[in-house]
Amino acid sequence: MADTYVLVHGAWHTGELMEPVARHLRDRGHTVHCPTLAGNRPGDDRRTTGLTDAVASLVDYLETQDLKDVRLMGHSYGGMVISQVADQVPSRIRRLVYWNAFVPLDGESLNDLVPPHYVALFDGIAAANDGAVMLPYPIWREAFINDADAALAEKTYGWLNPHPNKTFVDKARLSTPLAAMNLGKSYINCQQDTALPHSLPWHPRLSERLGLFRLVECAGSHELCFTDPERLADAIERAGRD
Amino acid sequence: MADTYVLVHGAWHTGELMEPVARHLRDRGHTVHCPTLAGNRPGDDRRTTGLTDAVASLVDYLETQDLKDVRLMGHSYGGMVISQVADQVPSRIRRLVYWNAFVPLDGESLNDLVPPHYVALFDGIAAANDGAVMLPYPIWREAFINDADAALAEKTYGWLNPHPNKTFVDKARLSTPLAAMNLGKSYINCQQDTALPHSLPWHPRLSERLGLFRLVECAGSHELCFTDPERLADAIERAGRD
Amino acid sequence: MADTYVLVHGAWHTGELMEPVARHLRDRGHTVHCPTLAGNRPGDDRRTTGLTDAVASLVDYLETQDLKDVRLMGHSYGGMVISQVADQVPSRIRRLVYWNAFVPLDGESLNDLVPPHYVALFDGIAAANDGAVMLPYPIWREAFINDADAALAEKTYGWLNPHPNKTFVDKARLSTPLAAMNLGKSYINCQQDTALPHSLPWHPRLSERLGLFRLVECAGSHELCFTDPERLADAIERAGRD
Repeated sequence: MADTYVLVHGAWHTGELMEPVARHLRDRGHTVHCPTLAGNRPGDDRRTTGLTDAVASLVDYLETQDLKDVRLMGHSYGGMVISQVADQVPSRIRRLVYWNAFVPLDGESLNDLVPPHYVALFDGIAAANDGAVMLPYPIWREAFINDADAALAEKTYGWLNPHPNKTFVDKARLSTPLAAMNLGKSYINCQQDTALPHSLPWHPRLSERLGLFRLVECAGSHELCFTDPERLADAIERAGRD
Repeated sequence: MADTYVLVHGAWHTGELMEPVARHLRDRGHTVHCPTLAGNRPGDDRRTTGLTDAVASLVDYLETQDLKDVRLMGHSYGGMVISQVADQVPSRIRRLVYWNAFVPLDGESLNDLVPPHYVALFDGIAAANDGAVMLPYPIWREAFINDADAALAEKTYGWLNPHPNKTFVDKARLSTPLAAMNLGKSYINCQQDTALPHSLPWHPRLSERLGLFRLVECAGSHELCFTDPERLADAIERAGRD
Repeated sequence: MADTYVLVHGAWHTGELMEPVARHLRDRGHTVHCPTLAGNRPGDDRRTTGLTDAVASLVDYLETQDLKDVRLMGHSYGGMVISQVADQVPSRIRRLVYWNAFVPLDGESLNDLVPPHYVALFDGIAAANDGAVMLPYPIWREAFINDADAALAEKTYGWLNPHPNKTFVDKARLSTPLAAMNLGKSYINCQQDTALPHSLPWHPRLSERLGLFRLVECAGSHELCFTDPERLADAIERAGRD
C-alpha cells in the first residue's frame, strides 16, 4: 500500500534530519515529505517567529504541494504544530501520528506541558540569546539521546539549530479538542524517552488526550531518528497505516 | 515437562479462537484444553446468561474431564471466571495465570473495573440488542488489536460473537481474597494492551491484587492470540511453569 | 574503549556471583572488579555489620587497588553503598550506575524505601536468626527471579548468603544530595523487576532522585545477572560509557 507521509520534526531539528527515516519508508513504497517549519530554517528570525508562523508554514506546504490523505506525523514540539494544522485543514489529513509529541488543549503552550525547571532553563537561555534556545549538551546526551554512544551524541548535537523560544510560549488554538476530531490518531511512544521525565510522561498523560487512539511502542530514546531510523520507520508505518 | 493447561477466552471470543495458541503449547509437550464458556456458545441466551453460569460451565468442564494440577489461564473477562473457579475447586488447580485479565475482589463486577465510558457504551448497546453487546469496530481496531494490520483486524473482528452484558454487571463471589489463596499465581502483561487505558491499567493496578505473583511481560496488544500466537504461547509457558 | 568497572552486588549476593557478567564486559575490553562487601563475606558477623562497614569496605577496596575513573555500578542494596562511597571518594569515580538499586537521601535507610510488609518480614526473620535475614524461597522465585525456570531459581537460591539486617536499618549519610553530585549518573531498569512492586517502583520513583541521569532499560527480572548475564553486561556498558 503506497501511502503519503509528512514527517514534522521537533524543536532544534530540521526536515532534512528526518531523511534517513524517510528513506526507509520510501523503500516500503510510500511517498514521504520532510518539510522544515518556519523558525528552524537558516534565515528565520528566532526573536519573532512564533507558533502561528510554524503552523502556517506547514499548512502552506500541504496546500502548495496539494497533499491529500496525509499521514501527518509530528515529533515532540511538532505535536503542537500538527494538532493545529489538523484543526485548520482536516480534509487533507487521514491520520495524525504523534511520536513522543505534545498534545495540547486549546489555550495551552508547550511550556505548560513540561517540568518548570525546563521552562526556567529555556527562558534564561533565550534571554541571553535574542530569543533563541539551544539545548545544553549534557541534557542532550543524557536525557534526549541516551541510547547513543558518545560519538553519535556529539555528531548529532552539531546538526541542531537554535530554536525560537516564542514557539514554546505561544498558546495553541484549537476550535475542536483533539479527542473530538474525526481523524485517525496514533501515538508512538519510545520506551526510554526521558526528554520528559517518566514521572510526568508523554504516555499516557498526553496520548490519552487524543480520545480513541492507537498505541505503538518500541525501544529507544527521544532521538530514535538518529539512533535507529529503520526501527522508527517501522513504528511510523504501524502507526500510520489504516 | 508435560503440563496441563486450560485456556479461558475473554468476552466476544470462544475457546476455538485460542487453538492457534494451544497448538504452540502442544508442540512443547503440554496438554491443552480450550473450552468455551456459557454465554459465548452458539445457542446461549445472551439476555439471561450471567457470570454464575459462565463460572459453572468451567467448573463443570474441569470436573467432567477430571482435570488436575491445572494451569488455568484466563484472558480479560476470563479473569472474572477463573478467579471464582479457583475459589470453588481449588484442589484441581496448580497455578492461576491472568493474561491482561480482571482480578476481582468479592462483590465486584467487571464493570466496576473499567472506565465509566465503557460501561455507558456497553449498556447502551445491550439495551438495543436484547442484552447482547458487540464491540464497535473502531475500538477493536485501535484499542484492542492495535498491533495488527487492517486486514487482520477486519478478519478477526468477523470471528467475534455477541457477548451477554449480564456477565459484565454480575458481581464476583469469592470466599477468600485471591491474595490469600494458596495457589501459584502469574500475571501476563502485554505491554501495548490499551483495552484498558494505561492511566487505569491492568498492571500493576489489578495484578497486585494477587498478592505474591509472578510477572511475565511481552510486546503486544490485547489480542496477541491473533497477532502472534507463538509469542503468547511462550509467555504462557513462562507464566505457567513451576 | 577500555574502561574500569566495579560491580557491587546486592543483598544476599557476593562479588563472585557477578563474575559471569564481568566476563562479558572483559570480553569487550574492559577491566572489571567484583568485590564482596563487608557483611556478605564468609566470616562476617551478621549481628554487628552495618551499612557503615559495607561502605568502608568498598572505599578501602578502591583505595587499596588505587582505582580511578571508575564506572561504579551498584545493584539493589548496592545502591545504598555506592551512593555513600561516591560522597566519600568522588575523585575516584567517573560515573555511578544504578541497576534497580536504591537511591537514598541523607538520613534514609533501605527500609525507608521498601513496602512495610517487607520490613516486617525481614525484622521477624532477623530476630529469629541473630540479625541475619534470608529471603524466603517463594519470594525469590516469584518476585526476584521471575524470568528463570524452576531449576535455575533453585540452583541460584542455593548460592545466596544470609544478609545482615542492620544494613537495612542503618541510615545513609550523604554530605551532598546525589542530584547535586557532579558525576555521570545512569540508571538501568530491568522492566520485569518486581522485587519492588510496580506500584512503588524503582524507576522513576528512585531513579529521578539522581537529577540529570541516563536511563537504560532491558527486559528481565531483578536477577538478570543469573538469567541473562550477557544482556546485563550490554546494559551496563550502555549505561557506563561516556
